[in-house]
Amino acid sequence: MALIVHKYGGTSMGSTERIRNVAKRVAKWARAGHQMVVVPSAMSGETNRLLGLARELAPGSTTSALQREFDMLASTGEQVSVGLLAIALQAEGLGAVSYAGWQVPIRTNNAYTKARIESIDDQKVRADLAAGKVVIITGFQGVDGDGHVTTLGRGGSDTSAVAVAAALKAAECLIYTDVDGVYTTDPRVVPEARRLHTVSFEEMLEMASMGSKVLQIRSVEFAGKYKVPLRVLSSFTPWDIPIEDEARSGTLITFEEDEQMEQAVVSGIAFNRDEAKISILGVPDKPGIAYTILGAVAEANIEVDVIIQNISKDGRTDFSFTVHRNDYARTVDLLKTQVLPSLGTDRIEGDTRICKVSIVGIGMRSHVGIAAKMFRALSEEGINIQMISTSEIKTSVVLDEKYMELAVRALHRAFDLDQPAA
Amino acid sequence: MALIVHKYGGTSMGSTERIRNVAKRVAKWARAGHQMVVVPSAMSGETNRLLGLARELAPGSTTSALQREFDMLASTGEQVSVGLLAIALQAEGLGAVSYAGWQVPIRTNNAYTKARIESIDDQKVRADLAAGKVVIITGFQGVDGDGHVTTLGRGGSDTSAVAVAAALKAAECLIYTDVDGVYTTDPRVVPEARRLHTVSFEEMLEMASMGSKVLQIRSVEFAGKYKVPLRVLSSFTPWDIPIEDEARSGTLITFEEDEQMEQAVVSGIAFNRDEAKISILGVPDKPGIAYTILGAVAEANIEVDVIIQNISKDGRTDFSFTVHRNDYARTVDLLKTQVLPSLGTDRIEGDTRICKVSIVGIGMRSHVGIAAKMFRALSEEGINIQMISTSEIKTSVVLDEKYMELAVRALHRAFDLDQPAA
Repeated sequence: MALIVHKYGGTSMGSTERIRNVAKRVAKWARAGHQMVVVPSAMSGETNRLLGLARELAPGSTTSALQREFDMLASTGEQVSVGLLAIALQAEGLGAVSYAGWQVPIRTNNAYTKARIESIDDQKVRADLAAGKVVIITGFQGVDGDGHVTTLGRGGSDTSAVAVAAALKAAECLIYTDVDGVYTTDPRVVPEARRLHTVSFEEMLEMASMGSKVLQIRSVEFAGKYKVPLRVLSSFTPWDIPIEDEARSGTLITFEEDEQMEQAVVSGIAFNRDEAKISILGVPDKPGIAYTILGAVAEANIEVDVIIQNISKDGRTDFSFTVHRNDYARTVDLLKTQVLPSLGTDRIEGDTRICKVSIVGIGMRSHVGIAAKMFRALSEEGINIQMISTSEIKTSVVLDEKYMELAVRALHRAFDLDQPAA
Repeated sequence: MALIVHKYGGTSMGSTERIRNVAKRVAKWARAGHQMVVVPSAMSGETNRLLGLARELAPGSTTSALQREFDMLASTGEQVSVGLLAIALQAEGLGAVSYAGWQVPIRTNNAYTKARIESIDDQKVRADLAAGKVVIITGFQGVDGDGHVTTLGRGGSDTSAVAVAAALKAAECLIYTDVDGVYTTDPRVVPEARRLHTVSFEEMLEMASMGSKVLQIRSVEFAGKYKVPLRVLSSFTPWDIPIEDEARSGTLITFEEDEQMEQAVVSGIAFNRDEAKISILGVPDKPGIAYTILGAVAEANIEVDVIIQNISKDGRTDFSFTVHRNDYARTVDLLKTQVLPSLGTDRIEGDTRICKVSIVGIGMRSHVGIAAKMFRALSEEGINIQMISTSEIKTSVVLDEKYMELAVRALHRAFDLDQPAA
C-alpha cells in the first residue's frame, strides 16, 4: 500500500464516458489498497472555449487586472472536471472528495496566467486519505496570498500533479497521457524507435525542451527538485488491465544515479525545425559584445536557444544564435536598426530553413568520443554541420532542414537505440 | 451618488454580445457616479448543462457527499459569468474585479444544493468600491464554515443579490429580468393588466408564491427582512436609455407603510392551475386528526398549499387540502394505504381539474367587504366556488379550472385594476 498520485489529461476527461473510465481505473488502484490522489485537467477544448469568450470581449489588451479575470474564468474548467470525477467515483461506490486549488490550498505567487507554486498544505488531503477517501484536486491553478485565483499557464496540470506528489511525499506520480511513454526518438521518423523503460530526470529535461511535448518542462524541473518518481504512461490502455502490468508500463523518470548505471551512453535523439539561425559577421572581439547583441533581443522578449561565438581572427569574430522561426524577421529587423550600427559591421546572415538535432544521454558525462561518433555518422551520410553546441548530457547540431529525418535515423542507428539497453 | 446593486439573469448573460451590453449598462450607472455591485447569473443553459453531465454519471442517488460535488460543479457557471463581465467592463475602460462567493466570503450553512446565507463580509467589497472599482459577485453560491462550496438552489442569484444589497446597505437592488415589472395580473389573460409602479413586500410575497415567477420567493423574504428596496425591471430596454428613465422603470417593492397609503385595496390577481384538491370525508372530529393526515403527507416530502377543515356535524368533519398536480396520485395512494384505515373512514375524493385564483392586497387589512365583493363578482359570472381560504392580505378560491380566465378577468374588472391607482 502506497500513496499514489494520478494525473489525467483533457482527452481522458473529454466526455462522461471517458470520465467513467478514469473513475474505474482509479477505483482499481484504490481497491488494491493504495491511497489515491487524482489531478485531472479540464475537459478537452474547455480552456480554449473559455479563453475564446474572454478574447471576444477583450481582444489584445493584457493588464494584470485583466489577467486576474482570465484566471478566474479559466480555472473553472478544472473545477468542473474534479466535480464530475468525484461524482463518477462515488457512483463507483468509493468515497471521494474534490478540492479546488484554493481549498487545499495550493499557494502561488500572484503572477496571473503563469503563477508559480510556493507551497501546498497537505492537512486536509491527509485527513481525507486517512478516512479512506480518494482526493481529487484541480490542476493548473492555485490561490495567491490575497485570496485571488491564479493559474499556472498551459500544461500546468502536470506541474500541479508533481507538486502535490512532492508535498505528500507520494511513492509515485503517474502521468496518464496520449503517448505510452518516452521514446528514443519520434517513432514517426524512426519506426525502430524504442520506448525507454527508464530515463533520467536530466535527459527528460533535454527531451522536453526539445519539444517532445510528453510533459510540461516545469513539471520535470519540479520533479527533479523534489525527487518525485514520475511515470509517463498511456491513458488508452483498458482500465481493467492487471494493476501490476499497469504499474510497470510507460517510462519511469528516475533521480537515482544507481539506476542509471546500466543506461546506454546515449538515451535518445531529439529534434525540431522550429528554429532559425542568425549570424553577425566581423564583430569586434571586445568585452560586452554578447550583451550588446543579446541584451537587445532579450528586451524584445525574444527567446534565444543555441548561442555560438567562435575564436576571433584579426580582432574580429562571428556571433551566431538561433531563435524561434516566428521571431526571425522581427529579430533581424531589430538587429539591423538598433544593434549593428553600434557594432561597426553591417554583415548579418540568416536562415530559416534549418533544423536542430541532438543526442541526449546522461552516460555522455563519462564517455569520451561520443560527439566524434555523432559527427562521423552525419558525415557518412554526407550531411554538412552548420553549428555545434554541447552540454554535459547533450550535443546539438544545426543542419539544413532537408536532412532532419536522415540525420535522426542515422544517429538512432549509430548509437544502437533500436536495441534494448544492455 | 449611491451604492447600487444590479442583478442580471442568465438570458442577459447568454452570449458575449449580451454580456457586452450588460457591461455598457453598468458602465452608464458607474459613470453617473454610483458605486456599483453586480450579481450575474450563469450564462443561460449552463447550469442545466453541468447538472446534466453530473446526472449522466450518477443517476438517481443523492447523498450529501454527492450533493457537495454537484455544488462544486454547478457553482462554476456563475464564476464564468463574473470573470467574463469583469473582462467586458475592463474593456469598457472601467476598473472591475470579480469575486466568487468564497472570496467575499458569503457564508452559508452546509445544506448543499439548498444552502442558506448566514453572513456576508463587506470588507473587500467596500475597499474595492472606495478604490472606484465595479465589484462583480457570483450569484447562487457561498462557502460553508469548513470551506466547502455551497449553492442556494434554483433562482438563488436573486437571493444573493438581495443579500449583498442588505449587507452593503445599498440604496436599491435592481433585478433586471425578462419582464418589465410586476403586473396587476398576467397580461396574457387580461390584456388590460397594468404594471404596478410600486407593490408592497407582503403583496409581492403572495404574488411570488402564486407562481408569478418574477422573483425567487426567498429573495423577497430576504428583502423584507432587511428592508432592501428592490426594483424589478426589464433587461430588454436599450442600455443607453437615460439613466433617470431607467431608474424609474419597472416595479419598486416597498417596505414603508406610508408609501402604501395611496395604494388600491386590491393590488393584483394571482392564479395557477398547478394544484389538485383532495378531500377526506367523515373524519372523526378529535385532536390530532390534522396531524395524522398531513404528517404522513409531509413525511413523504409532498408540499401542501390550501388547507381547510370545516366545522363538524355529528362528531365528524370533512378535511380538504391541495397539493401540486404532480403529487396527486402519490398522495391519494399514500392516504388510502397508510392514513384512512386509522381514521375509520374510506371516503376520499379528489379533483385535478381545478384552479386557484387569489386577490392580493395590503389594503384588504383595513377594508371590510372585500371578500364579499370577490364572491359576488364570481357569482355574477355563474362561477361556483369549491373552496375558500383567506389571510390578512389574500383571499383565494378554488374553482373548476375551466373558469380560470373568466374569473381572473371578472375580478380584475371588479376591483378596477385596469384603472391607474388613485
